[in-house]
Amino acid sequence: MTGNKVAVLGAGSWGTAFSIILADAGNEVSIWARRDEVAAAINDEHENADYLPGIELPRTISSTTDPEQALAGADVVVLAVPSQSLRENLGTFLPHVQRDAVFVSLMKGVELGTLKRMSEVVAEVADVGPERIAVVSGPNLAREIARREPAASVVACADESVATALQARVHSPAFRPYTSVDVLGCELGGAYKNVVALCVGMAVGLGFGDNTTASLITRGLAETARLAMRLGANPLTLMGLAGLGDLVATCSSPLSRNRTFGEKLGQGMSVEEIYASTRQVAEGAKSCSSLRALTGSLGVSAPIVDAVDEVVLGRMTTAQMMEAFIARDTKSEIG
Amino acid sequence: MTGNKVAVLGAGSWGTAFSIILADAGNEVSIWARRDEVAAAINDEHENADYLPGIELPRTISSTTDPEQALAGADVVVLAVPSQSLRENLGTFLPHVQRDAVFVSLMKGVELGTLKRMSEVVAEVADVGPERIAVVSGPNLAREIARREPAASVVACADESVATALQARVHSPAFRPYTSVDVLGCELGGAYKNVVALCVGMAVGLGFGDNTTASLITRGLAETARLAMRLGANPLTLMGLAGLGDLVATCSSPLSRNRTFGEKLGQGMSVEEIYASTRQVAEGAKSCSSLRALTGSLGVSAPIVDAVDEVVLGRMTTAQMMEAFIARDTKSEIG
Repeated sequence: MTGNKVAVLGAGSWGTAFSIILADAGNEVSIWARRDEVAAAINDEHENADYLPGIELPRTISSTTDPEQALAGADVVVLAVPSQSLRENLGTFLPHVQRDAVFVSLMKGVELGTLKRMSEVVAEVADVGPERIAVVSGPNLAREIARREPAASVVACADESVATALQARVHSPAFRPYTSVDVLGCELGGAYKNVVALCVGMAVGLGFGDNTTASLITRGLAETARLAMRLGANPLTLMGLAGLGDLVATCSSPLSRNRTFGEKLGQGMSVEEIYASTRQVAEGAKSCSSLRALTGSLGVSAPIVDAVDEVVLGRMTTAQMMEAFIARDTKSEIG
Repeated sequence: MTGNKVAVLGAGSWGTAFSIILADAGNEVSIWARRDEVAAAINDEHENADYLPGIELPRTISSTTDPEQALAGADVVVLAVPSQSLRENLGTFLPHVQRDAVFVSLMKGVELGTLKRMSEVVAEVADVGPERIAVVSGPNLAREIARREPAASVVACADESVATALQARVHSPAFRPYTSVDVLGCELGGAYKNVVALCVGMAVGLGFGDNTTASLITRGLAETARLAMRLGANPLTLMGLAGLGDLVATCSSPLSRNRTFGEKLGQGMSVEEIYASTRQVAEGAKSCSSLRALTGSLGVSAPIVDAVDEVVLGRMTTAQMMEAFIARDTKSEIG
């Protein structure tokens, strides 16, 4: 990585907020947007009004709907599309990706059907080695990042020298990246936290207080760590910014889409009614299904993922879910 | 333990809320209060208006200012006085404690000067073995407990059979206790979280958002775990309800005294002004000093405890503290 152009593929709130970090860190940024009007507004009005209204974007950020133009000369390719659309989108992007460019995933999901993490989908579809795939994950609510509130995050790549090079590319005055080689742990923390945030949102929507949500966060992190350690992740990653940190930020914030989605479920709306009322995607409502299949296939106990999936499928009410959590027998906390 | 009388020594918000759990679990409860008017109000109006206004107490809870009366026939002695007053209070209580009664500490602090945890003070002053000393700790905001919102917690005693017997004594419809043998881990989690909550409160008072508070919670738990593991605690305790759970509840809730104390500091009030404006104790403003001495004596790195103590001592502003956290060099997250 010797250039200073970065392509950000996806103009949602996190892709756009991360573009601000990249611009502040000295990169020239080209955002690929799916819709003409989004690209035009970024170029002409320096604003992404759909996803980050009221935030003025740096002039070194431009946007296009043409993948070739976005990717031309970019040695860093940031992937920020919805998880379940990655495979299809990569097919469009790949012919224009510069040789040796590094892929950086901002996505937090597990592919339905294949049960692959986003880095695994990239490796398979782009046919690149682990030294060209990184992830960024941490307590990074997009709107706060866009306002340049101070935040820390993890930049993980199996090749530590690549993680360190990327760290330098994304280190802005307000954004402090730590390196890691545990891509797996970061990705599982990111995917799982969306499901836990849905669950916490449901509890909030039902009127439960901070004792309950703190208990759900605690049990949710334990559940995440069980899966991650079963797959070989470093347990310290789950204790860190990409595990606990991201989980707490997402579960605490009224800005979180997954928590908000859960709150609406807790208040009695159906999944269909929520989809009809909002444009934004709640990744957790998809990844509960793939994480359930993954934990099930490995024989890992996952009561939160199981219950959230049942609620999303309409087979259990949120009140029944909470009843089931509360009614479990008392026992020793550990083991 | 074969009786059903419990003495609760201390009529603050947590002692009173825990008395409700005990009463709901079938115990006869006698609360020792320091002030006549508090005891009279509990007996006559079934309310502790100073600490839990608006909450009606069960009729099986009575109160007295006479330690002998509170302790008569009690095979479980719950200690809920301010941490720094425990040693002195125990001198008054001990002559009336029933032979073989089990002490249960609800206190979350480290004694100034001696640097002893509360269970260590009990062991020393009461001269009892570890099989007679337990702690209860978890995400248990007193006001939510008093409203019978569902909550989970940890009952820890070095003797697992005692923990299990106590578990049965405190298991109410809304309160789910898990057993543990890690008294040390529970106590350090409880003491440390007050200091982290002070720090989080300061950030909130200064206007920082959820990314920042989630990062502080994450680094705070890592700092707690470093100390706890150095002293021989089980790291899983810190990942559990008495570590992460209690920390998240305390840091998230506007009901938390320590967080509120920190918020006022962040808004520019001095420690003296805050003490002058409130009756309630913020344990963290004391234990930052004892925890700093403890971590210092062991050579354990403790940037949050160090900084909070500097602020409480008036030697650093909250803004300088946050600057120092943000300015630290980027590095690898782990190690």
